Amino acid sequence: MSLLVIGSLGLDTVETPFGAAQEVIGGTAVFCSVSASHFTRVNLVGVVGEDFPQTEIAFLRSRGVDLDGLEIKPGKSFSWGARYGFDLNSRDTLFTHLNVFETFNPRIPEKYRDTPFVFLGNIGPDLQLSVLEQIKQPQLVALDTMNYWIERMPNELARVLERVDVLLVNDSEMRQLSGEHNLMKAARRVREMGPKISVVKKGEHGAIMITPEKFFYAPAYPLENVFDPTGAGDTFAGGFMGFLAQCSRVDENTLRQAVIYGSTFASFVVEDFSIGRLRNLNENEIRQRFANFHEMTRFVRPWEE
Amino acid sequence: MSLLVIGSLGLDTVETPFGAAQEVIGGTAVFCSVSASHFTRVNLVGVVGEDFPQTEIAFLRSRGVDLDGLEIKPGKSFSWGARYGFDLNSRDTLFTHLNVFETFNPRIPEKYRDTPFVFLGNIGPDLQLSVLEQIKQPQLVALDTMNYWIERMPNELARVLERVDVLLVNDSEMRQLSGEHNLMKAARRVREMGPKISVVKKGEHGAIMITPEKFFYAPAYPLENVFDPTGAGDTFAGGFMGFLAQCSRVDENTLRQAVIYGSTFASFVVEDFSIGRLRNLNENEIRQRFANFHEMTRFVRPWEE
Repeated sequence: MSLLVIGSLGLDTVETPFGAAQEVIGGTAVFCSVSASHFTRVNLVGVVGEDFPQTEIAFLRSRGVDLDGLEIKPGKSFSWGARYGFDLNSRDTLFTHLNVFETFNPRIPEKYRDTPFVFLGNIGPDLQLSVLEQIKQPQLVALDTMNYWIERMPNELARVLERVDVLLVNDSEMRQLSGEHNLMKAARRVREMGPKISVVKKGEHGAIMITPEKFFYAPAYPLENVFDPTGAGDTFAGGFMGFLAQCSRVDENTLRQAVIYGSTFASFVVEDFSIGRLRNLNENEIRQRFANFHEMTRFVRPWEE
Repeated sequence: MSLLVIGSLGLDTVETPFGAAQEVIGGTAVFCSVSASHFTRVNLVGVVGEDFPQTEIAFLRSRGVDLDGLEIKPGKSFSWGARYGFDLNSRDTLFTHLNVFETFNPRIPEKYRDTPFVFLGNIGPDLQLSVLEQIKQPQLVALDTMNYWIERMPNELARVLERVDVLLVNDSEMRQLSGEHNLMKAARRVREMGPKISVVKKGEHGAIMITPEKFFYAPAYPLENVFDPTGAGDTFAGGFMGFLAQCSRVDENTLRQAVIYGSTFASFVVEDFSIGRLRNLNENEIRQRFANFHEMTRFVRPWEE
């Protein structure tokens, strides 16, 4: 089944201790749709300016990403610049130019309105809600958000959360949204807001998934060199939602595999700038890394030996 | 097989957001030997003052802990006071009184000298070395240390590390000792120093074990209420070393189970002050929690379904 992805597309300028990249493609919808495209057809909704590289549009199309929902507007694309410190956990945002993104008002093409799986990337909750209102009864909706919206648009966020199945945020966002430091309590609070499933991304500490009945813990991949962490969370979302859309079911077993696919893709994207590492990723590499996640968490209950 | 444990025993005064405890027993050798006692006979080496409660000495003995290596000296026991903040990751040490511990010079009773498994708790590396010199060819030696010794006695620490098999520290100690931020690189550097196996405790983020060939990731138990984190690391060490001593083998499979037993016992000890939660722990509770660790990390490779 197909996956609708809404979020930013733009040009990133990134400096890390290992190198620098100028105006490379980035944004939630880019990272998410490229990783999801390994599993399913992606219906992309977003906006870019006339400076967005035609070659990259062609690349997205070559990955089976449907771009009928991509507006190309006069002006410049969203652009963002950041510098990472040595431990890669801290970054300074150097600039954020919204450009054509400033007046973005997502219109969902008619042909997208039946899309069963929906990922609402981190944009204003009013826009996220407007997307949901244009879609017919999706099977599963996941949402990402951030401190900016939690603080400034809590009412709009509460309204959209009521219609969301999976909250997909990082640990500090989870704590801020719920007002609970403990993530188990936070997930309980989030369930009262709407999403029955919380997937919490913890960077180098992996990811956890809390469903009403179960708790699942996925490690981060033990890379010796993280080159550029930009896009890891969105790439995770793409692997997670793409796999669920492919399977078209959301039982515990499938959700856990989806978390591992999310972690798998996130572990690749940080090995290079932008989507560099995802461009030529083959199915063998993906399967091997998924298998490595299995190998590094596996143990036997002693009484079953 | 039996396990030799050397480390502090003392009286802790602890304040957390959930309560306070005055002069309750604590210290590495206490936490470690109580958890290890679920698996194996423990030969304890340490020192206490005359104020150390007789009832607690009787309790340790009732757990099968051999106390022939415990000196009882005129004067007061080691005592330590701390206050934890709301997130329980930060604590202020309010006082540390070495008392009888100040002149501690471990003498290993003749009957302990063949002990095959040895845990060198966090004490001066010169004392750790002197313990090893009194023991005949142990099968496995694990060592804990801290920033204080890494900074002040690097040469002595280097000398003892050459004779150690398992380094068992927290993530910041691992980074400081190795001079590497990345834990994979840090473990490689540690292998050059001696220990072929690194077990890195990451508090609420679980624990990792890095062997020359493999990487293993154990989550922390998702407790809704951590009551008092004091002793979690030492309790982990007890579960880890106790299980290895019981099995008397150190292959990858057994090491992984040992990490999970370490995590299991650590998850219990933080549910109460001191060793409160460990006092009446029964085998069913332990097995159930171990099984929960298995359940919360388990997933199926999709191509094997």
